Amino acid sequence: MARNASLSGFPEWLPEERLVELHVLDTLRNVFELHGFSSIETRAVETVGQLLRKGEIDKEVYGLSRLQDDDGEASAKSDPQALALHFDLTVPFARYVVENAGHLAFPFRRYQIQKVWRGERPQEGRAREFTQADIDVVGDGDLPFRYDVEIALVIAEALGALPIPDFRLRINNRKLAEGFYRGIGLADTAGVLRSIDKLEKIGAAKVAELLKAELGATDEQAQKALQLAGIRTEDTSFVAQVRALGVQDDLLEEGLTELEQVVAAVVQRAPGKVVADLSIARGLDYYTGTVVETVLVGHEQLGSICSGGRYDALASKGNRKFPGVGLSIGVTRLVSRILSQDLAKASRSVPTAVLVALSADESWSAAQDVAAQLRSRGIATEVAAKAEKFGKQIKYADRRGIPFVWFTDDDGAHQVKDIRTGEQVAAEPESWAPPSADLRVQVSTRA
Amino acid sequence: MARNASLSGFPEWLPEERLVELHVLDTLRNVFELHGFSSIETRAVETVGQLLRKGEIDKEVYGLSRLQDDDGEASAKSDPQALALHFDLTVPFARYVVENAGHLAFPFRRYQIQKVWRGERPQEGRAREFTQADIDVVGDGDLPFRYDVEIALVIAEALGALPIPDFRLRINNRKLAEGFYRGIGLADTAGVLRSIDKLEKIGAAKVAELLKAELGATDEQAQKALQLAGIRTEDTSFVAQVRALGVQDDLLEEGLTELEQVVAAVVQRAPGKVVADLSIARGLDYYTGTVVETVLVGHEQLGSICSGGRYDALASKGNRKFPGVGLSIGVTRLVSRILSQDLAKASRSVPTAVLVALSADESWSAAQDVAAQLRSRGIATEVAAKAEKFGKQIKYADRRGIPFVWFTDDDGAHQVKDIRTGEQVAAEPESWAPPSADLRVQVSTRA
Repeated sequence: MARNASLSGFPEWLPEERLVELHVLDTLRNVFELHGFSSIETRAVETVGQLLRKGEIDKEVYGLSRLQDDDGEASAKSDPQALALHFDLTVPFARYVVENAGHLAFPFRRYQIQKVWRGERPQEGRAREFTQADIDVVGDGDLPFRYDVEIALVIAEALGALPIPDFRLRINNRKLAEGFYRGIGLADTAGVLRSIDKLEKIGAAKVAELLKAELGATDEQAQKALQLAGIRTEDTSFVAQVRALGVQDDLLEEGLTELEQVVAAVVQRAPGKVVADLSIARGLDYYTGTVVETVLVGHEQLGSICSGGRYDALASKGNRKFPGVGLSIGVTRLVSRILSQDLAKASRSVPTAVLVALSADESWSAAQDVAAQLRSRGIATEVAAKAEKFGKQIKYADRRGIPFVWFTDDDGAHQVKDIRTGEQVAAEPESWAPPSADLRVQVSTRA
Repeated sequence: MARNASLSGFPEWLPEERLVELHVLDTLRNVFELHGFSSIETRAVETVGQLLRKGEIDKEVYGLSRLQDDDGEASAKSDPQALALHFDLTVPFARYVVENAGHLAFPFRRYQIQKVWRGERPQEGRAREFTQADIDVVGDGDLPFRYDVEIALVIAEALGALPIPDFRLRINNRKLAEGFYRGIGLADTAGVLRSIDKLEKIGAAKVAELLKAELGATDEQAQKALQLAGIRTEDTSFVAQVRALGVQDDLLEEGLTELEQVVAAVVQRAPGKVVADLSIARGLDYYTGTVVETVLVGHEQLGSICSGGRYDALASKGNRKFPGVGLSIGVTRLVSRILSQDLAKASRSVPTAVLVALSADESWSAAQDVAAQLRSRGIATEVAAKAEKFGKQIKYADRRGIPFVWFTDDDGAHQVKDIRTGEQVAAEPESWAPPSADLRVQVSTRA
């Protein structure tokens, strides 16, 4: 498992690895749909102008040009109408909402599972082509705060259903942080957030220096900001810890109340899965309330496997604003880790449960009849292509990971053999079924 | 339905349209897996050198370049190592087989459902970004002919399971055609095939002129070639019709036998779905036996919705050859037609079956408990975000297409209302279920 990709940054899976990925995708889809999220897909390409609207990420973008179009190539850099591959699913979704606002029922709940592309230097956990699974709820004009709570619960349930190690949602709130900074007299709250965002990378001492050098903070202001960022609680006790810092601000109070509600709900419905972590800042600027990152316990260096939050203006159309709250799961990052560390495995390597063996080449059509009857009852079945010796046909099944081989003798009597145990029993095509654990491929975590 | 795409050639669906597409994709996947095909995906990009190996299609290819990479853009044209988006799933699959040959069990059966990109002029049935669903069986060294028969049967079953109009597999065989041309003294059989391929576009008279002008055919040779291409039978009677033309050739005989087997099997197992059509040539050069195109009856001008065939050297690795046989369904072409002509429809517009209404804002957590119980039994459920008047909450469900609304009164008694009929009954969260037709979204053809 986990061979090197033939093109760095563009992972591809073997069939048995793909079964693990399919299980992850199916599980996410099932949870999202059970919670009433609608599937959409957007095109892989956006205009360069659309993609670079928020700035700062242009070096990651893959531009497109038709090989035979002499003018095309130059324009990808200079023409905002030129096409490029999307680098996330949020920017395309915002465009989709604006374009289709007249056809959507708000609050609009959607999930979107697609590949995205970023021309970054590949490393463990970071590919150039990877799959994201996003859920968002978007309102028309306003969106009740309760959706922040709901999104966190849906994601905790979705991640809990995956064959992955234990995880923690690390949740913070921008209002809380910005209100606090304002309350201690640091007006450039975005600047403080950007510095705090570097805490894990450069450490507290250097962040304090940044705050003083770049934002003119006093020693005391810098220490207060770092004290806030140091608060981490697995319940709502962070509220008392923040209050103990003695800062007064309306926005801070609003943020405290919001974060308290989110954390309390997750503690209740997904115990042990949440940390109020007041150091979480999230790099991008557009979050305006709840912010979330997620780590796999024991795999923290992999980075966040699920991130997002609340944005009060995901999109706008004239005076009309579309606030949203959403989270994005890094599917490829998760699947890569599952495969590279053998964290989960498929019960067999092919969908096939039964190989119908041939006693003679002329019996192929009769064998297809048997197969059709099994398939009509949901049992994945192949028919051998040639009437080789039974030993060879059994070996073929074994090599492909097919658990059962079906034999029909010249009198039309049927037998089915479990080639793992060697047990062989009489069977009828219209009624025999494998044990339920063998009906479909199952993916489970390693003991 | 069927609004114009905001970017020509890049269709996007509304949520209720996407439900139709999902149904098509799920149905294909189910049939493929029941027949023992394994899912794989390949990366969206290949090197330009890999993509242009077969030549002739370079103007359709989208090259990639990182916007911030000054050297990158020029190289997409001149450097065979530059990256470009794949234009089909066959070329990437061939590369995948060669790269992973040591990890695959042959004959390797795979399905692959992914987007592909072609920079062609968009028109009805032809997009720049579209989804293909491919199945192939690939052997190591050899691949029994029987797989040609099997692939045709699997595809007939898959198409038959879709909410689409009646269809016809139009099948021919390259050996038959090439043997025939050789038998009448036309040695450049590839040249004849290319001319015959234009029959539907330019007509018999012009094809005859081409054969004479470009290939030096006599009147008689041109007429014979056209007579062969004129044969169309819904059973195996084409064999007698070809024999009546009095041409002798070993390859012709081999092709007749192969085509007879394929047609006989489809006639038996998917009656009325096949035509032996001796005009089918398929443009690309690499087919070496069975060739297939598929039309929707009454929608012939849409073009082929499923094409492919046998290639004796899909890929090679040194002396090792990997013959294959496969077919590719044009999913986007089909779904576009289904949507533009309202051929099928989803039973509702969202996955949600039940909205749990709120009698008071404080009851949200209790409502989540009800929802969790319903979801644990596979019933997709949303909870209202605000305790608005019941009429407003019902209107919300109606607007989103949710069929049932759940009410819990202050004493904890539950009732559920079918808002389509107005019928309201007592219900328990641990046992109530909607009628099976309402459990999940269903997609069915219009009467």
